[in-house]
Amino acid sequence: MNFKIKRLGLTTGQLSVVILDDDDAFALGAKPGDRVRLFHIKKDGEHVGEGIVASVDVVIGSGFVERGEVGLYEEVAERLKLESGEKEVEIQLYSKPRSFDYIKKKIQGHELNTLEIQEVITDCTKGTLLPIEMAAFIVALEINGTTDDEVVKLTDAMTNSGEVFSFPGETVYDKHSTGGVPGNKVTEIIVPICKAAGLFIPKTSTRAITSPSGTADVFEVLAPVAFSKKRLLEILKKERAGIFWGGAIDSAPADNALINIEKPLNLDPFGLMIASIICKKKSLGVTKLVLDIPCGKGTKFPTVEDGKKYAFRFKEIAKRVGIEAVCLLTSASQPIGHAVGPALEAREALQLLIDPSGGPSSLLNKSCELAGVLLEMAGKAPEGKGKDLAIEYVRSGEAYEAMRAIIKAQGGNPDIQPADIEVGPHVADMRAVAEGHITNVDNSAINRIAKIAGCPAAKKSGTYIHQKIGAQVKKGEVVFTIYSDSKKRLEEAVEYYNQHLPQKIGGMTLDRI
Amino acid sequence: MNFKIKRLGLTTGQLSVVILDDDDAFALGAKPGDRVRLFHIKKDGEHVGEGIVASVDVVIGSGFVERGEVGLYEEVAERLKLESGEKEVEIQLYSKPRSFDYIKKKIQGHELNTLEIQEVITDCTKGTLLPIEMAAFIVALEINGTTDDEVVKLTDAMTNSGEVFSFPGETVYDKHSTGGVPGNKVTEIIVPICKAAGLFIPKTSTRAITSPSGTADVFEVLAPVAFSKKRLLEILKKERAGIFWGGAIDSAPADNALINIEKPLNLDPFGLMIASIICKKKSLGVTKLVLDIPCGKGTKFPTVEDGKKYAFRFKEIAKRVGIEAVCLLTSASQPIGHAVGPALEAREALQLLIDPSGGPSSLLNKSCELAGVLLEMAGKAPEGKGKDLAIEYVRSGEAYEAMRAIIKAQGGNPDIQPADIEVGPHVADMRAVAEGHITNVDNSAINRIAKIAGCPAAKKSGTYIHQKIGAQVKKGEVVFTIYSDSKKRLEEAVEYYNQHLPQKIGGMTLDRI
Repeated sequence: MNFKIKRLGLTTGQLSVVILDDDDAFALGAKPGDRVRLFHIKKDGEHVGEGIVASVDVVIGSGFVERGEVGLYEEVAERLKLESGEKEVEIQLYSKPRSFDYIKKKIQGHELNTLEIQEVITDCTKGTLLPIEMAAFIVALEINGTTDDEVVKLTDAMTNSGEVFSFPGETVYDKHSTGGVPGNKVTEIIVPICKAAGLFIPKTSTRAITSPSGTADVFEVLAPVAFSKKRLLEILKKERAGIFWGGAIDSAPADNALINIEKPLNLDPFGLMIASIICKKKSLGVTKLVLDIPCGKGTKFPTVEDGKKYAFRFKEIAKRVGIEAVCLLTSASQPIGHAVGPALEAREALQLLIDPSGGPSSLLNKSCELAGVLLEMAGKAPEGKGKDLAIEYVRSGEAYEAMRAIIKAQGGNPDIQPADIEVGPHVADMRAVAEGHITNVDNSAINRIAKIAGCPAAKKSGTYIHQKIGAQVKKGEVVFTIYSDSKKRLEEAVEYYNQHLPQKIGGMTLDRI
Repeated sequence: MNFKIKRLGLTTGQLSVVILDDDDAFALGAKPGDRVRLFHIKKDGEHVGEGIVASVDVVIGSGFVERGEVGLYEEVAERLKLESGEKEVEIQLYSKPRSFDYIKKKIQGHELNTLEIQEVITDCTKGTLLPIEMAAFIVALEINGTTDDEVVKLTDAMTNSGEVFSFPGETVYDKHSTGGVPGNKVTEIIVPICKAAGLFIPKTSTRAITSPSGTADVFEVLAPVAFSKKRLLEILKKERAGIFWGGAIDSAPADNALINIEKPLNLDPFGLMIASIICKKKSLGVTKLVLDIPCGKGTKFPTVEDGKKYAFRFKEIAKRVGIEAVCLLTSASQPIGHAVGPALEAREALQLLIDPSGGPSSLLNKSCELAGVLLEMAGKAPEGKGKDLAIEYVRSGEAYEAMRAIIKAQGGNPDIQPADIEVGPHVADMRAVAEGHITNVDNSAINRIAKIAGCPAAKKSGTYIHQKIGAQVKKGEVVFTIYSDSKKRLEEAVEYYNQHLPQKIGGMTLDRI
């Protein structure tokens, strides 16, 4: 059946929804929640492409849409790539895709072959599979696991779900982190170091998935991160480095589609976690990669042993798809640096590049250890000497100059100073409830406080930990500061803080029997 | 924040959606896809109940709702139980419910305790859990299985998710089928037999979940099946029997919420399948139950051994919640009777009650075997003699009289004759492609053909199998008829039929070497 298009100006986040008059829906055989496929109508009567799939909302008894009209949500209109002149679409009833049989096969504990994985990934990308069906796939991967072969196939299928960039004549370097440690703004230090050393490093990052701030969220405080493919290539041609939001380019869209489900489920199956990282790298033409694997409570790897298991598997899969990877297992007992939250982290990273002598040393050391691996891979330093060279790039100011160039190229203000970066404006200083040493820091409490305060959506919200493990504090001293864009959220964050003090203060005695 | 209510007249099937202006959403801290909780505003400032949860649609740039207005979908308005006078609701941001932690625990392979199960079930019922989270729970139950303790707890929690009926002084009888065999209209025969014998049998049924027609769909052709609790009790008080749609009363709503997810996933985890049946029975006060377990290809139990395993577990769980259950493992090699589809099945059942000598014998025998068990449980017949007594009730016309009384009590026309029941109107007779014996019948092809023809939504659509296993057919003889409400759907059903002939015609030789 053909329908006149009515754009509704509604956006739903994940879902694709179209609205039909109830009589039309009946004639089509569609019930509320059913799926339909939309096709462009061309003059010669031929469909273009495969159309798109959407669930149907049936209008009951209101004048929302007229008979013969279909109401389109913005996501649907965008996915249909409606040209301005188009006024009609054809709608057909859609039945469950074959890829769902493969998801069932995985639920039943069987290994999937190349074609099956390709079809599942294609249907995730196109939106043919419903969110609940994708959730079933993710849970099946989580519980039943994945073979190395499956992970390689997932990686390939996810890479090929979108644009694959290539940079002839360049060796493409990259850095990635498996996450889980708060305040991990190392990318903002590593990319300038690599640029200073002449490496080609087109760093694409995600926004926060479950954390209070992702790398793209942080860098966006300093400069835009969302570019078209064309603009991104122009920037890279000139600067050979940049920090971009991967979501803006059509790089491995299957991964984004899966993350849209993984995120609300708080699930990240082992094999998919590997495929998700590597596909993004493959699609940017990366061949040399350093992977930061924070290990410890609150990360994906509670023990170093867990991290090692992952690292070995990651290296193997990466190698099978043509990427040389080095994995560093890193400490995740407390935040890297002091700041958590996009603006606070951008400020801290910028400050370190401007004046590395002022610290924080955890940020400087970790960034330079990771950057050092890339410098060694590039032959810029002998093995074991990469970190020293990386530190030298920071100390000499060359990394800061590289950062200025990147900010400028991406459309930010290269003269921006840490003090120019606004935070808050609502601020609460939290004081030590006792005298003693900080014996432990609770990362998950810090993340939670930052999120309650408004992160990552409210970029100026966040937390600042003044004293870290080992520091001696006096009762009443300010040990923690919470920033929020909203007075109400600040109050809620303070309440949560008081119930879950992120810093444990103790004496030297651990127990008395 | 408080919002003025604007009802949108939209219905989405499974989802709960509210629409906010984008500035309001920002002020609330809600992004598209986020969840909020809606509360009634009362004059004294106190909230009533726990509110409800819904995902948010954020309006972008359109005049859909004004600032300060919230657009409500019909499901949300209904769940809020908006009284006519109410013009405002309070909206709060909602965070992930604790019950999702328990779902994660189940994903990780741990057993859930009573409180955890109660909370998951409560949140499924209230809509606090998102569809993808419920999907994760169902997949986890499917893959990781359930202990008997968990199934008992699920049963109790699901029973208590809604109204629990009790009929003091009555022993409440019931019949249920695990499904999978086409044309299983035995309920329409069993309930009249039991009523004729004086048993109290308040049979609640579902509409089709994955099949072409559910018991409620079939009986609805003869009389209404959806009643308020009050009306249902009036009917039962007078007639002591009836065939009702369980979805219309607030009986175990958790089960419906789970089925809404299980159905599109085509999943029905073993433990949940038991809990789902028993909770519906418990909520109707049933203490004596006969369970029909069709075994064979296309059912939930491919072999009789599978069915036996289920039967033993079912009896045990039923016993633990106070229900005496007898399970009959039944043949599912071909349809019961000939007709598949609501109207065709209603016609066939009515015909059998009016003239049992005309058959079909499979329907008469199966119905009377199941009814016979209930008659034996009630002491109306000695063990082994129940079937004979049941057949006697049919032959004597007492079952037909009971059926007339039920139809009348539920608001149907008791004088309705099989020929009065409309089918089609589009009809295609399919002819034997060869001479020989019917050696095999493909149930799944029959179900598929019936569904393509429009079942269960189109009640007059369906299939009629003229010749079953063992019958001798001549080439060109009509062996199968397809009925549809739509010419287009009939064509599609015929096309599918021709590609997947449901009757296999062969000679007596099986193989020649």
